[in-house]
Amino acid sequence: MNSKQANATLLSIGDELLLGEIVDTNKPYIAQALLPLGIKVAAMETTGDELHEIVAAFGRALDRAQIVIATGGLGPTDDDLTLEALGIALHVELEYRQEVMDQMAARLNRPAASFSSSNRKQAMLPKGSNILRNNWGTAPGVHFPTRDGKHIFLMPGVPREMKGILREHIVPWLASNFSSGQKIVIKKLHVFGIPESTLGERIKPLMQAGHNPDVGTRVGGGVVTVRLVARAPSEAEAQALMAPALQKVREALSEGIFGEDEDTLSHAALGALLTHKKSVAIAESCTAGLVSAMLTDIPGASGALLEGAVVYSNEAKIRTCGVKAETLARHGAVSAQCAEELAQGIRVRAGADIGLSVTGIAGPGGGSESKPVGLVYFGIATEKSVTAIEKNYSGLDRASLRERAGMQALDLLRRAAKNE
Amino acid sequence: MNSKQANATLLSIGDELLLGEIVDTNKPYIAQALLPLGIKVAAMETTGDELHEIVAAFGRALDRAQIVIATGGLGPTDDDLTLEALGIALHVELEYRQEVMDQMAARLNRPAASFSSSNRKQAMLPKGSNILRNNWGTAPGVHFPTRDGKHIFLMPGVPREMKGILREHIVPWLASNFSSGQKIVIKKLHVFGIPESTLGERIKPLMQAGHNPDVGTRVGGGVVTVRLVARAPSEAEAQALMAPALQKVREALSEGIFGEDEDTLSHAALGALLTHKKSVAIAESCTAGLVSAMLTDIPGASGALLEGAVVYSNEAKIRTCGVKAETLARHGAVSAQCAEELAQGIRVRAGADIGLSVTGIAGPGGGSESKPVGLVYFGIATEKSVTAIEKNYSGLDRASLRERAGMQALDLLRRAAKNE
Repeated sequence: MNSKQANATLLSIGDELLLGEIVDTNKPYIAQALLPLGIKVAAMETTGDELHEIVAAFGRALDRAQIVIATGGLGPTDDDLTLEALGIALHVELEYRQEVMDQMAARLNRPAASFSSSNRKQAMLPKGSNILRNNWGTAPGVHFPTRDGKHIFLMPGVPREMKGILREHIVPWLASNFSSGQKIVIKKLHVFGIPESTLGERIKPLMQAGHNPDVGTRVGGGVVTVRLVARAPSEAEAQALMAPALQKVREALSEGIFGEDEDTLSHAALGALLTHKKSVAIAESCTAGLVSAMLTDIPGASGALLEGAVVYSNEAKIRTCGVKAETLARHGAVSAQCAEELAQGIRVRAGADIGLSVTGIAGPGGGSESKPVGLVYFGIATEKSVTAIEKNYSGLDRASLRERAGMQALDLLRRAAKNE
Repeated sequence: MNSKQANATLLSIGDELLLGEIVDTNKPYIAQALLPLGIKVAAMETTGDELHEIVAAFGRALDRAQIVIATGGLGPTDDDLTLEALGIALHVELEYRQEVMDQMAARLNRPAASFSSSNRKQAMLPKGSNILRNNWGTAPGVHFPTRDGKHIFLMPGVPREMKGILREHIVPWLASNFSSGQKIVIKKLHVFGIPESTLGERIKPLMQAGHNPDVGTRVGGGVVTVRLVARAPSEAEAQALMAPALQKVREALSEGIFGEDEDTLSHAALGALLTHKKSVAIAESCTAGLVSAMLTDIPGASGALLEGAVVYSNEAKIRTCGVKAETLARHGAVSAQCAEELAQGIRVRAGADIGLSVTGIAGPGGGSESKPVGLVYFGIATEKSVTAIEKNYSGLDRASLRERAGMQALDLLRRAAKNE
């Protein structure tokens, strides 16, 4: 048991990373998993497949932290050298471990003897290694405790395998053997539709440095996330510190909060629809199916989504949603009037409680002085009312604009389902 | 001018990276930009906002490479310490550079005198720095040539600003001052629908080690990419080496190749539709708008997509695409028959040349013994024929399955547009 805060270095191994062929999502994932354990990531490094480079990287990593977590280079091919490099870095011999082959054989339903020598290479582990069973692939994870009390963990670079081994072996081991002595409770609240500066003003008193819980904000893709981190000797105490601050943030941001922790706007919109037993139909022009696709990211969406229409052309707007030719001629397809008729038209057509529509100019072409690229109208129709709102996403590229408009549509849907 | 191959170290600076709050896409982007220049990335490192850590990271980076490219830590706040750290690491004083404030003032249309002292901090650069104008934000990029002939480049961490400075200043400078003496020509061919092992067999003779061009394959998200890298003293010679190999790969993989370099399946499908002047209408059940959204990722999709229908419910399948109730009762919504009726129904409804449909079980629930999660049918209807194909994506999670099915649909559409 270690009472001061532990440090970790994360190491990714592979030429494909240095070539820029892969975006490394493993390191942020691991960093986030270590955070609640009170383990601080001191540095991250990426190295190629050359043996002496990996050896040197292990050396640097061990100089800087008590815990080293490395991913990649555990496969059967000639350029998978992580085990060999670790042996050299720690002056430890490799030994053949039959269990690795047995696990591989059981997983692939093949006799252990049938494996090639390149597979057998995966069973050559530094003497003193603990095997971390990989139920998601063939290369096992490895835990190597060094003579001077440091701990090295090796995992395959494939994210699915890495996540499995991290979750089932490494996090539980670190939680019981390498805890900082403090329990950490983290809560995230996600907000849409309130700018970060306004939001910051509203919760400013909670954001002073040195507070426990520590309250911070972070913006990404149109969502502002408020993160509260409470630290205390026990989880109950940390929760007790968390509760009043959380309550204050909830009060200050109320309707802007759409979800917590892992929630997305898709969860929020679908959750509101299902909770309030409302059905929806969606007509999309510039987002062209994206809103329907986002809503159905979540299993169970069939309980709320009756129909979606991608009405890119004027003909489709008229044919499927009953938009009036006169409206299109007079106000254009990108107008509040068209958004309202689309929302009402798809609602009536599908017999839904709520009709939702999006029509706008995603660019890069198609803009004009009066209707610039980035102008988007959203329509919401219910049995009682039909309304439209206007947003301007100028400055965003086509993909970002469509995504932002999709999120705005889901937020409107969430609010409509609650208030209808 | 430097005739041997140059090395670079990439450094990212920021606590948010160590906390795992951000996936670092800058490093792979920079690595890919250096590749055609013949500059090899030797290592990548990520460090936090602590001054002594950044100083040490600069020291290590300079030990390992002739070129160091760092992002982050150039902002106006107290934890932006990259300039200060570079000064310490190189024993160079910082000096106030009025041009930085003038550029900032011009960009923001404010008098230079109106800036706060924290903004003025951004103008304190190590003596001997060249300013790399930032037209996308306030913090300028910096180029610092060291006394021993190495080159350090600093850029803001915001991807848009980083990309602008890299493209307009750093890549051109490196291309003319730090070229490896060899010209490198890179060509990528993207293949869908041929497994990597089969593909590897077909182009095996080209993939021998030591060949020029070097030919390699890489799998990601259902697409296999063949990358050819030719090196020669001049670009013309590199192109001459490239041509016959490229021709052989094209012949070996022919119809499987959907695009080159930056092309996606969306480009390929839309390109085939526009080239062959075919229109399409799309009916989607399990992908629920994703195929339409993918096709319209590309500007100009309105020239081909007449209408899309998200027909999640049986009622919507009947109402919008004229699927027979009997078909649904007898074969179910996830069947070749239903896929064909959906494709034909949406084609006729929209008056399109091609009707495309997707219906399947995306999971995690809803599967059965005879129709397991992962079973997906695709329908293609033209004036001449209606066909369906079956795919099984068992083992993929909901999001991956939907994405893979979307790609399969776009590939079918591409082929149908060409062959129709």
